[in-house]
Amino acid sequence: MTESDLPVVNLTPGRWGDPAHAVDLPAAALEALKHLGVHRPASTASGEVDGTGGRELGGGEVEGLVELLGAEFVVTDFESRWAHTRGYSTPDLLRYRAGDTSEMPAAVVYPGSHDEVQALLGVCSERGIAVVPYAGGTSVVGGLAPQGTTFVAVDLRRLDKLVEIDEVSRTATIEAGVRGTAAEGLLAARGYTLGHFPQSYEGASIGGYAATRSSGQSSAGYGRFDQMVVGLTVATPRGTIELGRAPMSAAGPDLRQLILGSEGALGIITSVVLRIRPRPTERSFEGWRFADFEQGLAAIRRLAQDGPLPTVLRLSDEAETAINLADPDVLSGGSGGVLAIVGFEGARTPQRRAELAEVLTAAGGESLGEGPGETWRQGRYRAPYLRDPLLDEGALVETLETAGFWSTLPALKAGVTEALVNELTSQGTPPIVLCHVSHVYETGASLYFTVISAQTDDPVAQWRLAKTAANQAIAKAGATITHHHAVGTDHRDAYAAEIGPLAVETLQAVKRVLDPNNILSPGILIPPAREESSAERRELSEYEIDGR
Amino acid sequence: MTESDLPVVNLTPGRWGDPAHAVDLPAAALEALKHLGVHRPASTASGEVDGTGGRELGGGEVEGLVELLGAEFVVTDFESRWAHTRGYSTPDLLRYRAGDTSEMPAAVVYPGSHDEVQALLGVCSERGIAVVPYAGGTSVVGGLAPQGTTFVAVDLRRLDKLVEIDEVSRTATIEAGVRGTAAEGLLAARGYTLGHFPQSYEGASIGGYAATRSSGQSSAGYGRFDQMVVGLTVATPRGTIELGRAPMSAAGPDLRQLILGSEGALGIITSVVLRIRPRPTERSFEGWRFADFEQGLAAIRRLAQDGPLPTVLRLSDEAETAINLADPDVLSGGSGGVLAIVGFEGARTPQRRAELAEVLTAAGGESLGEGPGETWRQGRYRAPYLRDPLLDEGALVETLETAGFWSTLPALKAGVTEALVNELTSQGTPPIVLCHVSHVYETGASLYFTVISAQTDDPVAQWRLAKTAANQAIAKAGATITHHHAVGTDHRDAYAAEIGPLAVETLQAVKRVLDPNNILSPGILIPPAREESSAERRELSEYEIDGR
Repeated sequence: MTESDLPVVNLTPGRWGDPAHAVDLPAAALEALKHLGVHRPASTASGEVDGTGGRELGGGEVEGLVELLGAEFVVTDFESRWAHTRGYSTPDLLRYRAGDTSEMPAAVVYPGSHDEVQALLGVCSERGIAVVPYAGGTSVVGGLAPQGTTFVAVDLRRLDKLVEIDEVSRTATIEAGVRGTAAEGLLAARGYTLGHFPQSYEGASIGGYAATRSSGQSSAGYGRFDQMVVGLTVATPRGTIELGRAPMSAAGPDLRQLILGSEGALGIITSVVLRIRPRPTERSFEGWRFADFEQGLAAIRRLAQDGPLPTVLRLSDEAETAINLADPDVLSGGSGGVLAIVGFEGARTPQRRAELAEVLTAAGGESLGEGPGETWRQGRYRAPYLRDPLLDEGALVETLETAGFWSTLPALKAGVTEALVNELTSQGTPPIVLCHVSHVYETGASLYFTVISAQTDDPVAQWRLAKTAANQAIAKAGATITHHHAVGTDHRDAYAAEIGPLAVETLQAVKRVLDPNNILSPGILIPPAREESSAERRELSEYEIDGR
Repeated sequence: MTESDLPVVNLTPGRWGDPAHAVDLPAAALEALKHLGVHRPASTASGEVDGTGGRELGGGEVEGLVELLGAEFVVTDFESRWAHTRGYSTPDLLRYRAGDTSEMPAAVVYPGSHDEVQALLGVCSERGIAVVPYAGGTSVVGGLAPQGTTFVAVDLRRLDKLVEIDEVSRTATIEAGVRGTAAEGLLAARGYTLGHFPQSYEGASIGGYAATRSSGQSSAGYGRFDQMVVGLTVATPRGTIELGRAPMSAAGPDLRQLILGSEGALGIITSVVLRIRPRPTERSFEGWRFADFEQGLAAIRRLAQDGPLPTVLRLSDEAETAINLADPDVLSGGSGGVLAIVGFEGARTPQRRAELAEVLTAAGGESLGEGPGETWRQGRYRAPYLRDPLLDEGALVETLETAGFWSTLPALKAGVTEALVNELTSQGTPPIVLCHVSHVYETGASLYFTVISAQTDDPVAQWRLAKTAANQAIAKAGATITHHHAVGTDHRDAYAAEIGPLAVETLQAVKRVLDPNNILSPGILIPPAREESSAERRELSEYEIDGR
């Protein structure tokens, strides 16, 4: 079979999202890029490849898979494999453009049920064939690129069912291959919503959300994805595990939380039982201006700790406000300041809005009305579309994110910004660094950074150095290496340092039980179990917190 | 040193709580017991033992511990060891009364810091000395009684410090040996509360709350204890693990949730970082009556799913309402019905109360005002004190609890009740079975059962059969074996069946990494890793859900 016979995935390999939504850069942006020294590369790599290359499976191996799934669901043509190559980080896009097939799967398979996934893992384990689960394909951390091995991409799109809604318990059992958009559509037909809207919403899937602990833009109101999961089914080479007999339990460790975030390295999540909510009938998004980021941070902390907690709560810093969100009409009459977006959905929206207005006004905020809120809401999935034309123009643009406790955030923000500026300036490409808070908790919040500079001749290496500097600043500030992008291969060493060698050993031991032949996403998330060389120990120590 | 030199623990071995709060049974209760066929045993076991017995450590082993901690913190006198013997389940109390020293530790040690706990585990691992962490000692599931081994109780009461409060992040770092009551006192002095008030509040400790996933009576408003923990430090025989650099993270599985609920089997939690809240200035507790449990259940589900969610929300069934909570003045004018307790704390209490009144009235409820609410609030820690005089009188009285999704609760309640009634009736001691809901979530709730009958000649065996029947009914209904009592030894086999053999293997693998010599609470929570005999497989299968 070919890709076109399967349910449509509106993603073009190497370019974000639905081609119909591709954008051109505004003239003002092109002008601004000149100030960063950005110039269009002499020859822009087209992303065209010659249709050969990449490792392949042996005939016997393909036969074994065909026997299990049927010939139409085992695909080895170049186009399909290329479409399942890596994800959507900037280095990924740059490698696509360079026609780099090094991370291409040897085959793509399409199991049609949990039992087929389970059987597939049994066969692959027996034959030593590495597999990587693929659903939305929207990883930005190298989560689809196992290391040093030929592998098969296990595309889960045929696991596309809303299995059951329990209206009394307000839960829905949904298969892993269901896109976020499709899940919302299926639930909306019954009057429900999940309320999970990450920026990857147009591409990502339920299984990916679960495997990476995704967090959506409405996380303040609806929670993170891992907080929505009350049950799950995971296929492993050793068999199936089903977890979740109650919302919460004191029956030992919460093993759901061991599978959530395991990124395909411990098993393939085939379905989840999710808490759902009635679709909201009221909605209000508005903008608020604060004098500076410090004042804005104190104000949103007040909401996160004492309420009223809105459904969406975001705060851009001065640089992001000026560049991304500024509208002369919105932020006139002042020297700039910072913009917060506050969105309410559901019952008591007007009352909660009024209560919030009292709190934010007391905290120094000024209401900008619904204009900026609606502008943000309607454009909320558009930002990633800007990256492709920016890369085309010769800009380096990438994002990274972290989270920490409230008291650590100012130093964390300053440290990461300084690390990025220093590193990229030393490479001759001084950057602009933008930052916002988009997920809040009683005890802390996330920080999301956007970096823009001119590309050097080797932008992949350029970003690698910048990212390493940022990672070290995150570790030094005692924060986590990722709030919602996950670990993949890009964060693996920093993650290992974050949890420490003994915790890494426990993950390796769990992996040995569930995946004794190490076929599940090898090298992703969990460092290979082996004697550390002293060189590796030195590398880990780069990420240690001062004084530990 | 002797017990009296150490900070006071107001618990008498084998009898619940502070002796000053001991109660006599009211005459009406004594009369009611007669109807159950309860009669005072001819000779009541006094709990007096002859001061000998129990396994002991070898001289060299004691010396090693003394070398590490100092002679005053290694105690082997009988009185101290007896005071650290088992917990507070009814079988535990019955064994105390029988003078049964079989579960007595060989020594009690009092490390004074995380580093001393860490060093202690190193020495004990090296020498093969089993250890059980002991803080509040309030386990009701055999969580302090390792199986088939001489062991040392590691009493954590010297880890008694509030280490730090971060007022910006609203977190407190508290050591494991701090009692719940002491923690509230320390936090109150700074204007904060944890809001964790389990029925074991007068005895239990912070470390125990964490190790067992405790849930307090205010869980609707303040959350479960595992939801309050944002960071933790755990000592293991292989070294220390520190987790929690942010409220939430996408950096792999949430390993905090692997340590929480591990009941001392994976390590000894020495301190936790907890989310704290300002002490509430407003409070209101009131009673509501519903026609029957079904109507009441629908009403509290409405609050759990659509709000307003109170801080405390409980619903007694008809039997519990009639026996435990009935006050002729409160429930006059009707044929009984069921009683709900609704408590609010904190901001907007009057408004939330008014919103709730609207919801509950629409759901068929009738407000009984603050009288029943205050009565419950003031007596909330008194119920366990009734058990000792009931046992003295020859009654069998015990509690058990579970949780499930809302749609499963009616069948779960009926199934467990029927199992208990059938089993105890078949033993010639027909019981009264009471039930309440005390912890609610959007997708489900807990059920808490109290069972009262006459004792047979062998009440430990009598209860074992009843408990097994209840456990099987819980498994059959697809619910969890425990919502907040934890696993210990009593629930271990049912727990293994609940998570399945592959998940059990992963826990065993984690334990092998952290505790290679199996010294940590052997046989508690995690079944020993070994080839299953076919007899054991049969035993497990008793707990399997129908059709799985």
